[in-house]
Amino acid sequence: MRDFSADHRWLSINTATLRGAGPLDTAIDACARHGIRAISPWRDQVAAIGLERTKGLVQRHGLALSGYCRGGMFPAMDAAGRRAALDDNRRAVDEAATLDAACLVLVVGSLPGALAGAPQTKDLFAARRDVHDGIAATLEYAGSAGVPLAIEPLHPMYAADRACVNTLEQALDLCDAIDPGRRAGPKGAALGVAVDVYHVWWDPKLEAQIARAGKDRLLAFHVCDWLVPTCDLLNDRGMMGDGVIEIARIRGWIEAAGFAGHSEVEIFSTEDWWKRPVDEVLATCIERHRSAV
Amino acid sequence: MRDFSADHRWLSINTATLRGAGPLDTAIDACARHGIRAISPWRDQVAAIGLERTKGLVQRHGLALSGYCRGGMFPAMDAAGRRAALDDNRRAVDEAATLDAACLVLVVGSLPGALAGAPQTKDLFAARRDVHDGIAATLEYAGSAGVPLAIEPLHPMYAADRACVNTLEQALDLCDAIDPGRRAGPKGAALGVAVDVYHVWWDPKLEAQIARAGKDRLLAFHVCDWLVPTCDLLNDRGMMGDGVIEIARIRGWIEAAGFAGHSEVEIFSTEDWWKRPVDEVLATCIERHRSAV
Repeated sequence: MRDFSADHRWLSINTATLRGAGPLDTAIDACARHGIRAISPWRDQVAAIGLERTKGLVQRHGLALSGYCRGGMFPAMDAAGRRAALDDNRRAVDEAATLDAACLVLVVGSLPGALAGAPQTKDLFAARRDVHDGIAATLEYAGSAGVPLAIEPLHPMYAADRACVNTLEQALDLCDAIDPGRRAGPKGAALGVAVDVYHVWWDPKLEAQIARAGKDRLLAFHVCDWLVPTCDLLNDRGMMGDGVIEIARIRGWIEAAGFAGHSEVEIFSTEDWWKRPVDEVLATCIERHRSAV
Repeated sequence: MRDFSADHRWLSINTATLRGAGPLDTAIDACARHGIRAISPWRDQVAAIGLERTKGLVQRHGLALSGYCRGGMFPAMDAAGRRAALDDNRRAVDEAATLDAACLVLVVGSLPGALAGAPQTKDLFAARRDVHDGIAATLEYAGSAGVPLAIEPLHPMYAADRACVNTLEQALDLCDAIDPGRRAGPKGAALGVAVDVYHVWWDPKLEAQIARAGKDRLLAFHVCDWLVPTCDLLNDRGMMGDGVIEIARIRGWIEAAGFAGHSEVEIFSTEDWWKRPVDEVLATCIERHRSAV
């Protein structure tokens, strides 16, 4: 297992962690100031300052992109909705390719309308079919563009509105169904998973499924912590070390399976970290990356 | 599949649903007034009016007990804590026997201290060991008392503080490990599971695991609904039909596996149902039992 205690070369900052810091250029400058070597930006943050400007900043600071957030949201009530989702995912692939991201993270979606608070159906099975078909179609395009797709299983508390893929086993079953031959691209596997400890830490099958995934399918590793109590289903994630997740144990499993990429910090925290000065947030990420990841 | 549309003979009211109605005697009287034939009370509610008084009320109104809530909470930081938990579970078994409950529901517990907001450890593996050993020890006692034990897998969002058993598959693995011979008691299986749609609806393996459980292991079926959005991790459960769970589909799986007991309504709802008049709550439960379960 790699020693993270001496430096933070394997730390990546998912820029959602810095939503309190203003626009993406400000966040990137702050990362550079702290010697951060990798980031993972969100599409809305990139769109706000422009793709080319983002690319320029990333190149100027010599940043790697441990991922790009996010594609997915495949389910829809009709064929036109599904086509629109595929179009949007192709644009996300193009952006990920432009920014040379290690992968495009897929938050696959679930019941149409639920994210806006008005689910139009209860049919989780239809949602799963749309997700299967959407990933299969997007994989063709992403493969040509050389962008690996990383299915992110989301915590089951997001099953209605954000993702109907909720365990690593289910995500890997989906990978095997869509890509049984484990096709490879210029950056390794064309299809795999993003393992975020926040979503999967509770799973009794986690260690076994990480081993099953293996190096090829492990495309991203996200860290934060589960707070006790947790006061909001979406935006009350904790800083590594402040909660109950045995992050280092899970990193041990991931590395035993062959993963050697970044530990990407992704913290949604409206009431705490998003309210703190960006330099405090980044200094804490760096310290906890050394001591609690 | 049984037709629930004509009457509510298979409806049971978990009395946590009526926490807004005052003490348990008031709640039981209200249930009797609405022709409810079964309830499932909580230990604190029973303790508040007395076990013998509860038994008298239950008998006077001819109520069945679809379950008794709850045993469990086995993990502790030391042997004294584990012994105290076993003692408490024996008392719960005795109470369940006195009230002639169909089963004692087990919310198994997880990280010691977490329920009080101060977890003393992050070791989920130790918690799972304590749960295994606690259930095994309690099963001996419960078997002699003729009280079936129903392990309730809780939604993964409760993995830190309430239960480290979070899927039906995990609960059934535990049943098989502790009770490989599927021992029987006077009320059927001595050890099984309580399936609450709120906790398991998202699980892609749910149908298969219900079939695996079979009649012997299916000791209780709890219903409510998952609201979109859900505003609180614990106390924002919805009335059946108001959320996105395909309850009838899940009941179909349960009944195909041989379950023929009550559908027990368990709704924790500080901001909605606990604020409404008890007669409105019960009338709605009855109507939704007919139309949405």
